[in-house]
Amino acid sequence: MSSLVYEYPLNEKCRNYLRLNELLQQIHQCRSLTASGQTIALFKALLDIMELLERCDIRTDLAKDLDIQKTKLAAWAQAPGIDAAALAHLEQQLADLNQQLPRAARLGQLLREDKLLSTVRSRFAIPGGLCAFDVPQLHYWLHQPSIDQQQDIDGWLAQLQLLQQGLELLLTLWREVGQFRNQQASNGFFQDNAEQTEMIRLRLPADLAAYPVVSGNKYRYTIRFMPVGNTEIGNIDFELANIK
Amino acid sequence: MSSLVYEYPLNEKCRNYLRLNELLQQIHQCRSLTASGQTIALFKALLDIMELLERCDIRTDLAKDLDIQKTKLAAWAQAPGIDAAALAHLEQQLADLNQQLPRAARLGQLLREDKLLSTVRSRFAIPGGLCAFDVPQLHYWLHQPSIDQQQDIDGWLAQLQLLQQGLELLLTLWREVGQFRNQQASNGFFQDNAEQTEMIRLRLPADLAAYPVVSGNKYRYTIRFMPVGNTEIGNIDFELANIK
Repeated sequence: MSSLVYEYPLNEKCRNYLRLNELLQQIHQCRSLTASGQTIALFKALLDIMELLERCDIRTDLAKDLDIQKTKLAAWAQAPGIDAAALAHLEQQLADLNQQLPRAARLGQLLREDKLLSTVRSRFAIPGGLCAFDVPQLHYWLHQPSIDQQQDIDGWLAQLQLLQQGLELLLTLWREVGQFRNQQASNGFFQDNAEQTEMIRLRLPADLAAYPVVSGNKYRYTIRFMPVGNTEIGNIDFELANIK
Repeated sequence: MSSLVYEYPLNEKCRNYLRLNELLQQIHQCRSLTASGQTIALFKALLDIMELLERCDIRTDLAKDLDIQKTKLAAWAQAPGIDAAALAHLEQQLADLNQQLPRAARLGQLLREDKLLSTVRSRFAIPGGLCAFDVPQLHYWLHQPSIDQQQDIDGWLAQLQLLQQGLELLLTLWREVGQFRNQQASNGFFQDNAEQTEMIRLRLPADLAAYPVVSGNKYRYTIRFMPVGNTEIGNIDFELANIK
C-alpha cells in the first residue's frame, strides 16, 4: 500500500536545509515554464531562497556536515561486499563540495543584484501586485521567446548549483542511513528523547485519516496525530526513523 | 505581427478590478493542479483575493458600473443592424448581476472561515514556510485523491463566482468599446488628459525592445517607454485606447 513520509527537523540548521531543499526542488520542477502558474511558483521559490540565504550563511554548516559524512563513509570502506568504486566516487564528491563551499561567494549574492528579480521581489507580497501595470518589465519578460527566458533562469540557477549539490548529497545520505522502525502512538501520542537527532522521519499509510504534528528540540520531541474530518484517534501504528 | 497589450488603471477602483480579474484568471488556469507549482500559484491567487476583498467591498462599485453599461446598451438598441437577441441576453445578464451583487454575502467571507486556507495563509509569507513540517495538513491534502482536492477547490471558487461573472462582463464591455488610435511618444514620452478615463490600454509590437511605465490619476497621465537592454529610445509609434 502506498505511504506518506513526513520529515521534521529538530534544529534550526536542519530546518533551513529542508526548506532550501524543498524550494530548490520546486524551482527545478517549474523552471521550463510550460504550464500556467509556474512563473509564480518559480519566483516565489527563488525569492524565498534569497530571503533564507540572507538570514543565514549555511555554507559553513553544510561543509561541516558533509565532512562528517565523509568520515562515516571512510569507516564503511572496510565493510564486506562494499562497492569500492561507488564509495570512492561519493567520497570525491564530498571532498569537492567540502572544498568549494567555504570558498564560494556568499550564496545568492548575484541573485540580489538581478534587476528583474529585485523588482518582482519588491511587489511580490502586495496582493495582486504582479499585474502588468505594477511590473511592466515582468509582463514584457513573460512575452519574450522561451529561449531568452530560459537563459535568464539558467543564470539564476547557476548561482544555486553548489548549494543544491551539497544539500541533495547530504540529505540523500541522511535519509538512506536512517532506518525505519515500527512504533505505536498510544491514543495518537508519542514522545521520545532526541539525543542529537537532526530530524525525524515518519512513514504512514497514505489512507490514514490523520496527519502528525511534531514539536521538539534537541532534547526531546513529541508527535501528536491530528484527525482529519470526524475520525477518532486511537492507537496509531507508524514507522519512525531518527537521523543523527 | 504579434502585439502586446498593457492596461493601466487610472483610479483605485479600476486597479482593484484588474487585480482581482487577473487573480481569478490565474486560479482558473491552475485549478486542476495538473502541473508542478500550480498549488503554490493557486493558493497565492486565492490568498491575494481574500486580502483584496478584506480591504475593499467592491460589490457596490461593480453593481454601479454594470448599471452604467446597461444604460449604454439600451442606447444601442436603436442602432441599425444590431443583434436584438444578443443585446437582450446581455441586458439580462447585467440586470441579474446588478440585482444579485448587492444582496450577496460579503465576498470571500466563507473563504476566511476555511481551515486549510487559514493555515496556509498564516504561513505563506514565511520563506519556505509551506514545507510539510510547517503545514502537515497541507502535505496531507496534497496527497489526497484528485477528486477530493477538486471538491475543495470547487467549494472555494463557488464563493467567487458572482465576482468573476461581474468583472468579466464589465471588463469585456470596457475593452470592446475602447477603440485603439495611433499615437506617437516623442523621445519615448507621451502625456494626455485623463478626463474620467477608467483605464488606458496600450498596444505595442511584440518585438519592441521597451516597456511602458505609466503614472497617472483621474486628471492626467504620462507614459514613459523604458528601454530593455542597451537600446536607445527614440520616437515610438503605438496604439492607445481610453476606456471611459
